[in-house]
Amino acid sequence: MTQPSPDNAPSGGSPPGKPLFGKIALIGIGLIGGSIALAARRAGLAGSIVAATRRAETAETANQLKLVDHCGTDLAAACEDADLVIVCTPVGSCGEATQIIAPSLKPGCIVSDVGSVKQAVIGAMAPHLPAHVHFVPAHPVAGTENSGPTAGFAELFDGRWCILTPLPGVDAAAADRLEAFWRGLGSEVERLDPADHDRILAITSHLPHLIAYTIVGTADDLAGHLNSEVLRFAAGGFRDFTRIAASDPTMWRDVFLNNREAVLEVLARFQEDLFYLQRAIRWGEGDKLFDLFSRTREIRRALIHLHQA
Amino acid sequence: MTQPSPDNAPSGGSPPGKPLFGKIALIGIGLIGGSIALAARRAGLAGSIVAATRRAETAETANQLKLVDHCGTDLAAACEDADLVIVCTPVGSCGEATQIIAPSLKPGCIVSDVGSVKQAVIGAMAPHLPAHVHFVPAHPVAGTENSGPTAGFAELFDGRWCILTPLPGVDAAAADRLEAFWRGLGSEVERLDPADHDRILAITSHLPHLIAYTIVGTADDLAGHLNSEVLRFAAGGFRDFTRIAASDPTMWRDVFLNNREAVLEVLARFQEDLFYLQRAIRWGEGDKLFDLFSRTREIRRALIHLHQA
Repeated sequence: MTQPSPDNAPSGGSPPGKPLFGKIALIGIGLIGGSIALAARRAGLAGSIVAATRRAETAETANQLKLVDHCGTDLAAACEDADLVIVCTPVGSCGEATQIIAPSLKPGCIVSDVGSVKQAVIGAMAPHLPAHVHFVPAHPVAGTENSGPTAGFAELFDGRWCILTPLPGVDAAAADRLEAFWRGLGSEVERLDPADHDRILAITSHLPHLIAYTIVGTADDLAGHLNSEVLRFAAGGFRDFTRIAASDPTMWRDVFLNNREAVLEVLARFQEDLFYLQRAIRWGEGDKLFDLFSRTREIRRALIHLHQA
Repeated sequence: MTQPSPDNAPSGGSPPGKPLFGKIALIGIGLIGGSIALAARRAGLAGSIVAATRRAETAETANQLKLVDHCGTDLAAACEDADLVIVCTPVGSCGEATQIIAPSLKPGCIVSDVGSVKQAVIGAMAPHLPAHVHFVPAHPVAGTENSGPTAGFAELFDGRWCILTPLPGVDAAAADRLEAFWRGLGSEVERLDPADHDRILAITSHLPHLIAYTIVGTADDLAGHLNSEVLRFAAGGFRDFTRIAASDPTMWRDVFLNNREAVLEVLARFQEDLFYLQRAIRWGEGDKLFDLFSRTREIRRALIHLHQA
């Protein structure tokens, strides 16, 4: 019962019927923006998808790749008549982008973002938004170490979490519609309070990235003293760290600066725990090491079980 | 020109001719010992392969899996008439195992190990070995988070480094023969001074494991305060860490206790670098974060280039 669908039809392989949104505008067209465009087209979620980015070179690449129907450099113009606008810039640029697009937003439009930090992004975006739009912040917990428009792919969100952090008083229908959109992109959707989101992600994502960046830098410094043999013998563990530490520098700088309190708090806990192990190694207290290593093995098993369940 | 080879022939799919060793004895039959047995059989490197392990249950599993021709619990008996003996126990047990097998070693036998630490293992094994055997320490830089005899597989060493750390004055032919053996198992082989090995692996393997163990423990502690939502939203970075932190507790306890000085040294450097980033986050110094994150991205690219070259 496949519907015939010409190559240039925006609805792609979607089920017949009206798409979820008439026009979608993406502000920023990197790994996340590009992947949203491709996944939305795959699922036929939009009548049309446009994008805008400040750098003409990026817009040209996006157009060459046909990620969207059109990508320009005028952020405000892209948002005209849009039913859904998603700000897909690094966290530190969300506020400024919102200020620019605010006058073009049509009444009833849903405005969202993809930031890895929620409280700071809400604080930066909300003051610029007119009362006649519905602001529903979102964070797709998905990504790769690649960035830019060439890095996008339609499967990025499949089976991954997207966390919505709607504010009290937001239009329930708008939040539900954005949730349906993210499910259509392939995600599982959960809703959290913005502060809880920031604390949880500080542990499961921001701290691991900070550690990976640090250890790869430390290893590289030490490698200089050892004639670079360090890198040659990089074992499994270290290779995983280098992959994480290859993530987009601008995005991650912004994450740490904008989730400062939560990151510093979990970092302090981590340092404390690391010093405990350091002392155990120095004093030859093997039982303390063994106890932790056994516990973390169980955590891994619980995580696998949780994922399969 | 494939040679016909019955299923029970120990030479497997090997080239015709005499195998590299008549009899191989493996002391310990976990992930590494089991994989050596399977890879050696795959390449037809031995006339026969036996193993011994102290736990009767483990020996029974190894026999059921047919990892070797026979697995018993008498370490000394397994080594009789062996041309190559590889101690595959955790690092902390190498000395005691060597003491037990020493009287059974035949003149001209090559004795090796698979320890992730070399100086401490050499110090623990060498004093027990008779002058009529050739001791050639080795470290296959390969593994998974699984352990025990069921975890072994023939492809574990394919394309991975095996580092030999022969001592001054060792018989050159014996070292060359062990090198040929490891190449036959699928590894690339390099030779290093034991102290250099321990410093390099402290950075590329031991420190990453310690960090992963710590962060998973810290996250689990914090998860208790957040109703376990931490684990549910575990993102890519954290999942990699949990996999590393699921590695064998006994093996890794022994690694840290036996490479103490090198681990404490690189740990101090890591802590210093982490505090630098912590301070940059606290003071909002985004340029310092951006500079490091850009550098680590380049390191990843260099590592990929190095691997492809």
